[in-house]
Amino acid sequence: MGRSVINEAIVAFRAHTPSRRLAGGAPESHFRRVPSRSFPAISRDLVAIGRRFYARGWVQGTSGNFSEVVSRKPLRLAITASSVHKGQMRSTHILQMNEAANASGAGKQVPSAEARLHLEIVRRRGAGAVLHTHSIWGTILSGSVPHRDVVTIDGFEMLKGLSGVRTHEHAELIPIVENDQDMSRLADVVGETLDRNPSAHAFLLRRHGLYTWGDTLADAERHVEILEFLFETIGRSATFRPMGGEE
Amino acid sequence: MGRSVINEAIVAFRAHTPSRRLAGGAPESHFRRVPSRSFPAISRDLVAIGRRFYARGWVQGTSGNFSEVVSRKPLRLAITASSVHKGQMRSTHILQMNEAANASGAGKQVPSAEARLHLEIVRRRGAGAVLHTHSIWGTILSGSVPHRDVVTIDGFEMLKGLSGVRTHEHAELIPIVENDQDMSRLADVVGETLDRNPSAHAFLLRRHGLYTWGDTLADAERHVEILEFLFETIGRSATFRPMGGEE
Amino acid sequence: MGRSVINEAIVAFRAHTPSRRLAGGAPESHFRRVPSRSFPAISRDLVAIGRRFYARGWVQGTSGNFSEVVSRKPLRLAITASSVHKGQMRSTHILQMNEAANASGAGKQVPSAEARLHLEIVRRRGAGAVLHTHSIWGTILSGSVPHRDVVTIDGFEMLKGLSGVRTHEHAELIPIVENDQDMSRLADVVGETLDRNPSAHAFLLRRHGLYTWGDTLADAERHVEILEFLFETIGRSATFRPMGGEE
Amino acid sequence: MGRSVINEAIVAFRAHTPSRRLAGGAPESHFRRVPSRSFPAISRDLVAIGRRFYARGWVQGTSGNFSEVVSRKPLRLAITASSVHKGQMRSTHILQMNEAANASGAGKQVPSAEARLHLEIVRRRGAGAVLHTHSIWGTILSGSVPHRDVVTIDGFEMLKGLSGVRTHEHAELIPIVENDQDMSRLADVVGETLDRNPSAHAFLLRRHGLYTWGDTLADAERHVEILEFLFETIGRSATFRPMGGEE
Repeated sequence: MGRSVINEAIVAFRAHTPSRRLAGGAPESHFRRVPSRSFPAISRDLVAIGRRFYARGWVQGTSGNFSEVVSRKPLRLAITASSVHKGQMRSTHILQMNEAANASGAGKQVPSAEARLHLEIVRRRGAGAVLHTHSIWGTILSGSVPHRDVVTIDGFEMLKGLSGVRTHEHAELIPIVENDQDMSRLADVVGETLDRNPSAHAFLLRRHGLYTWGDTLADAERHVEILEFLFETIGRSATFRPMGGEE
Repeated sequence: MGRSVINEAIVAFRAHTPSRRLAGGAPESHFRRVPSRSFPAISRDLVAIGRRFYARGWVQGTSGNFSEVVSRKPLRLAITASSVHKGQMRSTHILQMNEAANASGAGKQVPSAEARLHLEIVRRRGAGAVLHTHSIWGTILSGSVPHRDVVTIDGFEMLKGLSGVRTHEHAELIPIVENDQDMSRLADVVGETLDRNPSAHAFLLRRHGLYTWGDTLADAERHVEILEFLFETIGRSATFRPMGGEE
Repeated sequence: MGRSVINEAIVAFRAHTPSRRLAGGAPESHFRRVPSRSFPAISRDLVAIGRRFYARGWVQGTSGNFSEVVSRKPLRLAITASSVHKGQMRSTHILQMNEAANASGAGKQVPSAEARLHLEIVRRRGAGAVLHTHSIWGTILSGSVPHRDVVTIDGFEMLKGLSGVRTHEHAELIPIVENDQDMSRLADVVGETLDRNPSAHAFLLRRHGLYTWGDTLADAERHVEILEFLFETIGRSATFRPMGGEE
Repeated sequence: MGRSVINEAIVAFRAHTPSRRLAGGAPESHFRRVPSRSFPAISRDLVAIGRRFYARGWVQGTSGNFSEVVSRKPLRLAITASSVHKGQMRSTHILQMNEAANASGAGKQVPSAEARLHLEIVRRRGAGAVLHTHSIWGTILSGSVPHRDVVTIDGFEMLKGLSGVRTHEHAELIPIVENDQDMSRLADVVGETLDRNPSAHAFLLRRHGLYTWGDTLADAERHVEILEFLFETIGRSATFRPMGGEE
């Protein structure tokens, strides 16, 4: 039966089968063969995504950050610079970063402050791209019920936009992680959360925003659009009282 | 008296006069004489509609699909390819499909997974174009009351945007069909629903989205805009409590 | 004290001082001296307004219609053609119409079906331009309380965008007129409503939309933006419950 | 604990430490060294901000006004002209104004009617740019509870977009000032409010709009986007009832 609830019978952390990833790394065999792309092409697409997300109101102020894997060995990511307005970027705002979150040749610019979270996701999930947005509905849902640690969404056709999901009769669990200014500590919690929820396509940082990823940048963007659509649908449904008195 | 309700006295399927269409085909006389258009012109317009609908938030992720009849004998449809972002299409993403939903010369691309629904609508209604969108309010209304199988809208001037409707004192019934991943089974149910509701301009798939059509692509687009406007109006009205204490 | 209410103590039609206009015409002295503009310039601006209003969602489907006075003696209006998508117009969709709502040289196109209402407003108010929109919030407010015949808005700084209003401590009364498909009858009722409400800058047609006007097209557009902003503010406020329990 | 409330325990004006600014002027040492920009560059950016804010619905009608400091000694501001549609400006609509709010060489145009408020903010805060918007949610929050004189927002990551804020565990107090058509009197009240709230990044005029500022125009724009995001989040949260019955 299709219904959407926010964390009804799933208050405690779900017990999942042990992670099939080695702590700290993802098996090479997990990486879908995705052709590597040139840095200029990646930069152009990250800049374009910024414009599209800005038009939606998902990266206001200097919020949000995006990355794409340039190479795996050594690990190099293209990532948005810190403190840049993501709706007004140019290619010069996309930096190349190593596995220690350091970017060389970036002048005064530094990688996104949340670069460590991108690295955690790339390593644990073998993601090819990571996108982080701050939307109104994502922010509301992530904080509306204190201590709830997951948003559960099921029954919607839109769920089929998430990689590997083939039916609307799918229950997507989106863990909520407590926000933290200590990025090292937060990266650890994010890593543990990813390991405990191997099927999750995304997680929310409480009163902060959405993190999602994909094998390709296009997959990651599709995930953002699908999840933001579902957050808004659930959010608006929560205050919807259909005529006729029934709920 | 103008009022909008969601399924007051119409819980059961309405008994309509028997369909005037032969099962599996529409009488030739039903087709309004619409000049045929070239495939490049059709492709350009389907791509443009994708951009407009994306700007409205009606085709997020890779949701939505659009078609237009290229020829009737033999039956050929121009239809959007599967798994393409409808807001970022190019002409190469529009395929030509036959009455068995097969597209030749499409390279690796395949027609929309819901192609059979488009064919069902074209045959049963003699439609010239079919449009399918996933909107927030359409999704909410289609699923807000379990087991309700119709949305009834009456009293709004905007209803005159639906073909054949000349007054706001018109009751538009929009059937809700249960979502189903078995496309063959779903196409049959859609066909029966269309036959039982010969006056309907559209139907909703529960927690999925809107299907509407028209003699021309412009008519179909107008129907989408009118219905999405009305869904949002009804949806927002359901939570509206005017000042003064009255409800 | 600034507050916004919908029809508190004003259920019955307000008794206003007798209209200072002669029935059927406006004194020449009422017309502010506005330089006449060329028809091509007027057409370009009406087309541009259509695009801006469409981006706002105020003219979906083929709803809405706009006009500007080309000359007063004889009376000639530039007006949008009927059944055209107002967000996709070209100059050829702007027709020139006389005082009997007839357009010559328009080919198959005819003036907006609501042309008579534009003429009524031009005559009674000496308006230089008339704009009609269909917005979600205008539609909701015009129909949320049956038999209420006015929306009263006061206390907002935005009211100063209405011609002649110099302070937020102003009460704007927006009459609600019952919708009617008999355009001749509706034009009479609109005329009487305008005469009874000489200070009104606009009126609503129930579950239909907003009519407003101005000395110039820019004034009329500003009025639309101000009123739509206020409709949305009031509409959303009606369901707003601030934290802390107080209302 | 992160939560957002509107004026829980802070009904009365907060007693702050005495202002560290001399009444009527800001110590030179307060001004961050910001390179001066040419007037044409400033004009271009103010025009561009108008377009972006208009797209968001934050400057409808002719509402809103923007300024940037051109020079400090003598004090000269670039400011938007009065009664201009901020979404349709050209460089000719940006005037240069002195410390008495007079603009020379502006033809028939005069500076924004609220120029004195911009001067007050520049003097008291040493701001490099001042932005004023009229948004739906800002208007609602500023007037939803009569006599409340502050909006308090805490617990959101987005707060880090405000200059000097390094953690989501920050409580931002946004004073609400009563609207007033007497600009001289209002400027005095605004000045006192700024002095009493030396940490505030912004204030609201009741049922009018938001004033915020920054060392640079980019900072001020970022503040507008952050605050409007938070107003909408709080506004929508106030009517949000999560499933499961808890409130």
